[in-house]
Formats: sequence, structure tokens, C-alpha cells
Amino acid sequence: MDDIEYLKSCVKSIKDFPKSGILFRDITSVCENPQAFNLICRLMAEKYAGLGITKVVGSESRGFVFGSAVAVLLNSGFVLVRKPGKLPREVYSENYELEYGQNTLEIHKDALTAEDRVLIVDDLLATGGTVEAQIKLIKRSGAEIAGAVFAINLPDIGGSAYIRDKYNISCHSIMDFPGH
Amino acid sequence: MDDIEYLKSCVKSIKDFPKSGILFRDITSVCENPQAFNLICRLMAEKYAGLGITKVVGSESRGFVFGSAVAVLLNSGFVLVRKPGKLPREVYSENYELEYGQNTLEIHKDALTAEDRVLIVDDLLATGGTVEAQIKLIKRSGAEIAGAVFAINLPDIGGSAYIRDKYNISCHSIMDFPGH
Repeated sequence: MDDIEYLKSCVKSIKDFPKSGILFRDITSVCENPQAFNLICRLMAEKYAGLGITKVVGSESRGFVFGSAVAVLLNSGFVLVRKPGKLPREVYSENYELEYGQNTLEIHKDALTAEDRVLIVDDLLATGGTVEAQIKLIKRSGAEIAGAVFAINLPDIGGSAYIRDKYNISCHSIMDFPGH
Repeated sequence: MDDIEYLKSCVKSIKDFPKSGILFRDITSVCENPQAFNLICRLMAEKYAGLGITKVVGSESRGFVFGSAVAVLLNSGFVLVRKPGKLPREVYSENYELEYGQNTLEIHKDALTAEDRVLIVDDLLATGGTVEAQIKLIKRSGAEIAGAVFAINLPDIGGSAYIRDKYNISCHSIMDFPGH
């Protein structure tokens, strides 16, 4: 079994969570396993080692788990993207559409500058809505986006193609689950 | 300037956040700084290296930032403690008191076993309410708690003494802010 097959074997799949009809790919079962968690974080960081990444950006809350681990492995800073009202200093805000309703994400205005080279890290890429909001937030500071890396990609939902085509940003993922 | 003075100089202090009368010690300003973030995570991990820590436990959301980074540095697993309804498998729950009202935290029932040696990691120790809930959740699995480590301690609020006296668990912190 290779590394990726091993990691996929560690992902527990939960039927009808968070609602009926959804097969939830439970990344926490990878985090809880010492061998699997260290392997996946190192595979995520490895793709971007030596590329001069100064800051990793991760969003509340599971993006914090992988983002900060990858930041430490790359000797980068870690910039938190949060829900409204959680960050104490001046922020940029971006709204984005969910299946039902809207969400807003925020970033500190002074967390990034035009000198920064940024890697976006998250647990899951599905529609690409969250990563698109992060891209818009990062661009407002003038920082360069080196790429985006995800623990899991659900390619059939189309987020990876959407982000590549619209923003010319490469999305890498460790585990793909076609057909979810 | 030594390491701890340097880290304290990186913490921005925000008046009247999240409400009037509170001087908020903003740990995100440490996370955003590559040198400071890597230093503080390494100092947190260093105290527990070689002690056979199998799992780090961290709570939503800022506990995820330091917990997962320390877990990777210790080659441990990372166990997420979350608000109700966020974890997909069977959970243990604990309620705890806030200044106004109550909070609940949950952990997966199968995330820890009696064979595990656990380190609790969080950003801030104040009253000790959150860490006490985490201790109760961990004890339900029979795992051993090796200690708890925090980026910031506000010793005058008394959480560190409360946890040590009530549970005989040592609380370490990288930065103390007496008098808040």
C-alpha cells in the first residue's frame, strides 16, 4: 500500500452527516492517528518546500489544523482567516455564497504585505467557495499566492477546476475522492 | 532580549476587545510573524519532547493553531475538541460555566484509549474553565494526561493554580502576563 492509499484507508466515511444524503469524509480520523497525521502534513508541506513561502493562510476551523502544522514545517508564519467579529484588529471582509445563504470571512489588514509569498492550506476542496474568498482577501494586501493545498479534494464538485481557470492558481490535494 | 521577551514584544494588546474594559492579548500577532510563530511552537513542544506523548488535544478554534503545530513537532496525533454538533462520530460531552451562561465541548469517544499519553495545548489560560472541560473529556477515555501547555497565561485570574491543585496536572506557559 502506498502513502496515499494508506491515508485514504484512515479516512472514516460517515453516512448522512451533517445532513441526510451526504457521505462525510471525516478528516479528523486522519488527525487522530499519529502516523497518518504526520505523513499528511509532511506531504502537504513537501510540495512547497524551498519555494520561499513566507505565510500560510488557513480558515476557521479545520483549516487551522492543517495550516499551522504546514506553517511550522515550512518555517512560515500562520495567518488566521476567521468568521466575523473574531479578529481583534482592522480587517478586510469577503462575503461568499453557500448552498443556502451567505458566509463572511475576515483577515487582518496588516497580516500580509506585497512582499509576502502565500500558501493557502485547507482540509477540503469541494465547490471552492471558501478558497475563493481567501484568494480575494489575500489579493487585497497585494501578496503573491504561490498555490493552495488541501488534504481532500472532491474533484467532481468542480472547485479545483474553477479556481485554476478563474484565478490561474494551482490547487494540489493529497487525497482525491471522485464521486465523493 | 531573550526568547520570552522577544515573544512578548510581538503580542499586540488591544483595548476594549471583545468588550469594554478588557485588554485583549492578541496571539494572532505572534502567529503571523514567521520567526515568532516557529519559536513559540518549538518552545511549547520542547518541554514535552521524549516523554512519549501519543496525542495532543486542542480545542476549537485557537487551540487548533498551537495544538496541531505542537503535534507535528512531537510526531503525535492531534485530537480535536469541538463545539456541539461538529464532530461526526460518537462523542463524549462536557458542560462548563462561562462568566455568563454555559458552554459545551465534545471529543470523539474513540479518539483516545487508556494506552494514550496526552498533552493538552491551548493559546490562553485564564480561569481554567476550558482546560478543565478538556481534562474531564480525556479522563473518560482512561488516557493519561502528561500536562498542559499554553502560549499565554494570565496567572492573576488563577486558572493555573486551580488546575494544579484540583487535578494535580502541571500547567506550563510560554508567556505570563501578570495583572493581565
